[in-house]
Amino acid sequence: MAAAEDLIAPSILSADFARLGEEVDNVLASGADIVHFDVMDNHYVPNLTIGPLICDALRKHGVTAPIDVHLMVKPVDRIIPDFAQAGATYITFHPEASEHVDRTLQLIKAEGCKAGLVFNPATSLDYLKYELDNVDMVLLMSVNPGFGGQSFIPSALDKLREARAMIDASGRDIRLEIDGGVKVDNIAEIKAAGADTFVSGSGIFGKGQDSDPNRYNGIIRQMREALAGAGR
Amino acid sequence: MAAAEDLIAPSILSADFARLGEEVDNVLASGADIVHFDVMDNHYVPNLTIGPLICDALRKHGVTAPIDVHLMVKPVDRIIPDFAQAGATYITFHPEASEHVDRTLQLIKAEGCKAGLVFNPATSLDYLKYELDNVDMVLLMSVNPGFGGQSFIPSALDKLREARAMIDASGRDIRLEIDGGVKVDNIAEIKAAGADTFVSGSGIFGKGQDSDPNRYNGIIRQMREALAGAGR
Amino acid sequence: MAAAEDLIAPSILSADFARLGEEVDNVLASGADIVHFDVMDNHYVPNLTIGPLICDALRKHGVTAPIDVHLMVKPVDRIIPDFAQAGATYITFHPEASEHVDRTLQLIKAEGCKAGLVFNPATSLDYLKYELDNVDMVLLMSVNPGFGGQSFIPSALDKLREARAMIDASGRDIRLEIDGGVKVDNIAEIKAAGADTFVSGSGIFGKGQDSDPNRYNGIIRQMREALAGAGR
Amino acid sequence: MAAAEDLIAPSILSADFARLGEEVDNVLASGADIVHFDVMDNHYVPNLTIGPLICDALRKHGVTAPIDVHLMVKPVDRIIPDFAQAGATYITFHPEASEHVDRTLQLIKAEGCKAGLVFNPATSLDYLKYELDNVDMVLLMSVNPGFGGQSFIPSALDKLREARAMIDASGRDIRLEIDGGVKVDNIAEIKAAGADTFVSGSGIFGKGQDSDPNRYNGIIRQMREALAGAGR
Amino acid sequence: MAAAEDLIAPSILSADFARLGEEVDNVLASGADIVHFDVMDNHYVPNLTIGPLICDALRKHGVTAPIDVHLMVKPVDRIIPDFAQAGATYITFHPEASEHVDRTLQLIKAEGCKAGLVFNPATSLDYLKYELDNVDMVLLMSVNPGFGGQSFIPSALDKLREARAMIDASGRDIRLEIDGGVKVDNIAEIKAAGADTFVSGSGIFGKGQDSDPNRYNGIIRQMREALAGAGR
Amino acid sequence: MAAAEDLIAPSILSADFARLGEEVDNVLASGADIVHFDVMDNHYVPNLTIGPLICDALRKHGVTAPIDVHLMVKPVDRIIPDFAQAGATYITFHPEASEHVDRTLQLIKAEGCKAGLVFNPATSLDYLKYELDNVDMVLLMSVNPGFGGQSFIPSALDKLREARAMIDASGRDIRLEIDGGVKVDNIAEIKAAGADTFVSGSGIFGKGQDSDPNRYNGIIRQMREALAGAGR
Repeated sequence: MAAAEDLIAPSILSADFARLGEEVDNVLASGADIVHFDVMDNHYVPNLTIGPLICDALRKHGVTAPIDVHLMVKPVDRIIPDFAQAGATYITFHPEASEHVDRTLQLIKAEGCKAGLVFNPATSLDYLKYELDNVDMVLLMSVNPGFGGQSFIPSALDKLREARAMIDASGRDIRLEIDGGVKVDNIAEIKAAGADTFVSGSGIFGKGQDSDPNRYNGIIRQMREALAGAGR
Repeated sequence: MAAAEDLIAPSILSADFARLGEEVDNVLASGADIVHFDVMDNHYVPNLTIGPLICDALRKHGVTAPIDVHLMVKPVDRIIPDFAQAGATYITFHPEASEHVDRTLQLIKAEGCKAGLVFNPATSLDYLKYELDNVDMVLLMSVNPGFGGQSFIPSALDKLREARAMIDASGRDIRLEIDGGVKVDNIAEIKAAGADTFVSGSGIFGKGQDSDPNRYNGIIRQMREALAGAGR
Repeated sequence: MAAAEDLIAPSILSADFARLGEEVDNVLASGADIVHFDVMDNHYVPNLTIGPLICDALRKHGVTAPIDVHLMVKPVDRIIPDFAQAGATYITFHPEASEHVDRTLQLIKAEGCKAGLVFNPATSLDYLKYELDNVDMVLLMSVNPGFGGQSFIPSALDKLREARAMIDASGRDIRLEIDGGVKVDNIAEIKAAGADTFVSGSGIFGKGQDSDPNRYNGIIRQMREALAGAGR
Repeated sequence: MAAAEDLIAPSILSADFARLGEEVDNVLASGADIVHFDVMDNHYVPNLTIGPLICDALRKHGVTAPIDVHLMVKPVDRIIPDFAQAGATYITFHPEASEHVDRTLQLIKAEGCKAGLVFNPATSLDYLKYELDNVDMVLLMSVNPGFGGQSFIPSALDKLREARAMIDASGRDIRLEIDGGVKVDNIAEIKAAGADTFVSGSGIFGKGQDSDPNRYNGIIRQMREALAGAGR
Repeated sequence: MAAAEDLIAPSILSADFARLGEEVDNVLASGADIVHFDVMDNHYVPNLTIGPLICDALRKHGVTAPIDVHLMVKPVDRIIPDFAQAGATYITFHPEASEHVDRTLQLIKAEGCKAGLVFNPATSLDYLKYELDNVDMVLLMSVNPGFGGQSFIPSALDKLREARAMIDASGRDIRLEIDGGVKVDNIAEIKAAGADTFVSGSGIFGKGQDSDPNRYNGIIRQMREALAGAGR
Repeated sequence: MAAAEDLIAPSILSADFARLGEEVDNVLASGADIVHFDVMDNHYVPNLTIGPLICDALRKHGVTAPIDVHLMVKPVDRIIPDFAQAGATYITFHPEASEHVDRTLQLIKAEGCKAGLVFNPATSLDYLKYELDNVDMVLLMSVNPGFGGQSFIPSALDKLREARAMIDASGRDIRLEIDGGVKVDNIAEIKAAGADTFVSGSGIFGKGQDSDPNRYNGIIRQMREALAGAGR
C-alpha cells in the first residue's frame, strides 16, 4: 500500500496547563497534526496526569484535530466509555493492562473510536499476532512511560522495522506511532525504521516566542524538513 | 477559641480547563479564598481527574492563594511529595486509603504542607481520636466523592456538629471543611452545624457573564451574605 | 414500634443443587419465609458459590418469596445491577468490601432492591451510625462467613442487643437478621436478644423424608415453636 | 497418532439451574460426551457463576461423564483442590491468571485431575512451548470469556491450526477444545482447523421439546453429522 | 486481677544477623524475657525482613524462651501455620490486614499459638470490643511500623490507659505490649499507663562489650530498675 | 567469546540462620564462588524469607564474595535501592513482576548493581529479545520458585540451549544461571546445555562434618569435578 502521510503529534503533557486551549490552538496552527494525550493513573505508572474532563474541555474549546489518547492506566475498560464521550479519536492501551485484550479493542471500537496497542520497550509484539485486524494504531514506546529524563532507546529502531513488516504484511491501514526521545536530529532515522506518527512533548512545547500564535512553527517545520529527507 | 473566618473554596473540577489560569484568577478576584483541587485516580473512585502538573501550572501562572488538594487516590503516600513540590498548601486524604494513617499525616507535614483527613458519608470520626494533634483540616463529604449528580446528605449536619465538638475540645486551629451539595440556600445551615470552609464546584463556576473578569462576584457575594446571617 | 414478624430464611447453599427449584419449592411449602442466597467470590472469602444466573433461574422457576442476597464479594458495586435484574429482593454487603458504603447503599436502592449491611463477628456497628436511614436490613454474622464447621459465637448475643437498640431508636422498619449456628435449641435465645430474621442452612436442608414435598415441615415447625416461646 | 474422537461438550451455563441434574442427564442421554463447567469469579471476568458445590451436586446426582472445569478466576491455585474433591475431571486455567503456570499444572495433576491451559483470543501460544508435556487439554477461546453476545472470532481458525501442529508434533494425547460461537453451520470448518472437542452452550440447551428426555437429541445429531462430513 | 509480671522483649531486628543464635542467647542470658520477632512483607509496610525459617533456626539453635511474632503482613492467614510450625509462641496481626479478624484469631489458636491484635497509632481499639475473649495479647504501636527513625508517640499513653481499662474489665489474662521508642528514661511512664510487656530493639542491642556473653546485662538491668520504680 | 568460568552459588536459604556468618564463611572457604540470596515476599510466592538487613549483616560480617539477590517479590522497584545499599552485587527479578521491565533493569544498574532476568519454567524467553543489551545475568528456574520438594524439570535443558544461543549471539558477557534440583549427578549435563552458574541449596549445606570449617569442601569438589568433565 502507499506510504501513509507523516503525522506530528505534540504531547500536551508538556504544554502550559494554565492556558491549554490556547497552547493546543497554537501548536495546531503551527502545523501539528494530532493532539497526543497521556493519561497516567498513579498505578500502572508512578504519576497521575489528566483525565476525560480535560479532553472534553479541548473539544468544547473548539479543537477539531484528532485526539490520540494513550492510556497508561490499569485496568483500562472502565474509563474507555468516558474518553469516547469526551471526544477521543484514538484510544490506545498496554496489552499487559487488560485481562482481555481482544475484548478491550472491541470495546473501543464499539464506542466509536479507533483502537490501538502500546508496547513498552521490553514487551513482545506477539500481542499483535491475532489482533492485527482489530487495531488502527500501534504505538511503540522508545522510553519507559511515566518516568522522566530518558532518551530514545536504540533497540526501538529494530522493533519499528519488525512492526512495520507486520503492518505491511497485513495490508491494513494502521498507524505506527513512536513516543519517547523523538527530536529533530533523530526523526529521520526513526521514520526510516518505519514510524509514520511522531510524538514529541518537550521537543515542541516551550520553543519559540511566547507572544507568537505561530510560536511552534519553527520546531515543527524543522521536523517536517527532517522527515522529508528521510527515506523509507 | 475564637470562631475561624469562613472560607469559600471553589472546586476547579467545574472550571473551564481550556483556560484554567484565567478561571482561577477570576474566581479569586471575585472573592473566593482558597482553591479546592480534587484528585481522582480511577481506583479509589471511578474517575480520573488531574494531577500534580496542573497544580504546578497554577503556581507558575501566579496563583498565590492556598491550594487545598483532596486526594481521592489509594494508596496515597507515593504522590504526596509530588503535590508538595507542585505547590499544594493543604493535602487531605481518606483514612481508609492509607495503611498507616499517622505515618501519612507525618509525611505530609514533613513535606511542608498542612495535613487533613477526609471522611466519607458513612465513615466514623474514630480515625480522628488519636490524631487531632496532627491534623490542620477535617473534611466531611456530604456527597459520595467521585460520583455525579448527588445532593447534600442530611446526616452530614449531625456529623458536622460532632466534628465541631471534637475540634473545639482539642483547642487546636483545625479547619472544618464540607464538600458536596453546598449552595446559597443551605450554606447558612451548614455553617450553623460547624463548618468554616465551604467547597462548591458547579455552584460557583458557570455563573455570571462570560466576558466579565468578576463574573463569579455575584454568586460568591450571595454565599457570603448567607454565611453572615448564619449563627453558630 | 410493633415487633416485626419472625422470618425463617433457609440458606440454599445447603440445598441439593441438582434439583434446586424443587428444594426451594419444598422449603417454602414447609413454612419458610424467605430464600437466603450466599454469594462468595473466592476473594473476599475463600470459596466460590453461586451468582446471578442461579437467582434468575429461581425466579423463572416461579419462586415469588423474597430472595435475600448476601454478598460475600469485594468489591461489590459491579455485581449489584446483575442481582437486581436477576430478581433479588434484599442485597446486603460487608461495609469493609466497599470503598463507598453510602454510595453502595444508594445504588442498591436505585436498582429497586432493599439494602442492608452485614457485620462480621469482630466488626464494629459504627458503620451503621450515619446510615440507619438507608438500610432495610442489618445482618449479624454469628460465625465467620465462608468457613465451614463453626458454631454460634456467643458474643453475637450482646451485639444483637446493641443493634436492636440502634434500630428501635431509629424508629425505622429494619430487619435484624442473624446467620451462623442457628438451631432449634438456641433460636429462642437469639430472638430474645433482638433478631427477627433467622438464617439456617444445614439446620434445615437434609432433614425429613426425601420423598415428601413437605419434608422440611418438621424442622421449621420446631423453629416456629421455639420462637413462639421466646420473649423479647 | 490416530485422530482423536470428536467430543461434544455442552456448557451448563445455558442449562436451567432450577433442575440442573435433569438437564445434564438429558443432554448426556441425547448424545453429549462431556460436561463443560464455566467458573467465573467477578474478578478475572466481570461475572460470577458457579463453584465447586455445583460440581459436587452433579456427581452426587449420579453424573459419571467427564466434567471439564474451565476456571475464569484469578488467582487459581487455592480453588483447585476444591474442584478436584468435587469431582472435576479436567481443570483448565488461563496462564495469565497464575504467577506460576508450571506449578499450577503440577498441582492439578497432583490432585488427580487432567490439566489444561486456556488461551484468550489475543494470547500467544508461547505458554505451551515448555509445557506440552504437562497438559492434557488446550482450550482456545473463540469469543472473549465472560462477556455475552459475541460470535466466533475468525482468527481462531488459524490459531487452531497452529495449536494442532504443536500438539501433533508433541506426539502426546492432548485434547484441542474450542469455546465460543460454535454452531451446526461452522462446526465442520472448526474441526477441519484442528479442534476435537466442541463447547456449545446456548447452541444446545433450550432446543427441542421440553417434555422429552431426549430433547437435545436433534441438535446434537446435527452437530455429529456436520462433524462426520468434515475433513481434517 | 493481680498485676502481671513485666516482660522485656528485645526485637531481634536490631541484632547482628550474622550470629543471631549467639545474640539471642546473650540477650536472654542478660535477663530479657521473650524474643520479639518483626515480620514485614514489603506490602503492608515498605520493608521485607525475616520469615518462618529464621524462627525455626532459633528453635533448632535451642532457644526456649517465648517467641512473639508480630506480623506486619497483609493478608495474614496463609503464613500463620508456617509460623506455628516454626515454633512461634505468640502471633499478633493488624486487624486491618485480615478480612476476617475473628477467624484469624481462631486460626492462630487452632494452630496452638497465643493470639493477639496490633493497633497502629491511629487505629481505634474498637476491634477489641467483640474479641476480648479471643486475645492473649494486645500490642499498641507507639511508632509507625516499618518506618525508621521515629520517637515514642505521646498519644500512645492515653491509648494504653484505655486498653488497660478494657483488659482489666474483661478479667482475662491478656498481655498489654508496647512497641516503639521505649527507652530507659520513658519505660516507667509507659508502665504506669498500663503496659506490661516492653519491646525494645536498638535500645538494647548494640550496647555493652562485644566480647561479653552478658553484654546486654547493663541495659536490661537499667530497664528493670526503672520498671521497679514505676507505679501502676 | 571464550567460555565463562563456572561459578558455584550456594543458596543460603539452606544454611543455618542461627550462625549465618560462619556458614557463609565456611562455604566460601570450601570453594564456593558467589552467595545466592533468595528473597520471597509471601505475595509473588507463598513464602517469606529474608530481606535487605540480612544482606547488610553479611557485608558487615566481612563477606566480600559477590551476593546474587534473586527477587521473588512483586512489585520489585521499591526494594531495589534497599538491596543495592545493603551490598547486593547482582539483582535479578521475574519479568512478570514488573510493569516496566526495561525501567527496572535501568534502575538496578543506576543503583550500581548488575541486573538480570529470571524465567519461570513456563515463561517465554521473549522478554530477553529487546533487553539483551541491558542484562548481566539470565537465571532459568528448573523448579518452581517458592515451593518445596521438587526435582529438576527436564525441559529446562532445551531452554538452557535456547538461552545460550541468544547470549552467544549477543556477544555480551552475560551469566547463564540455573536454579533448582542441581546435584552432583546432573551438573555436567546442565553445564553441557549452556549454564555457567549453578545454584544449589540443600545440595551443599548440611553436608560434611559439623566441626570442620571446610566442611563443604567435599561436596563442592565433587561438583567441580563433574563440571570439569562436562563438554560444552
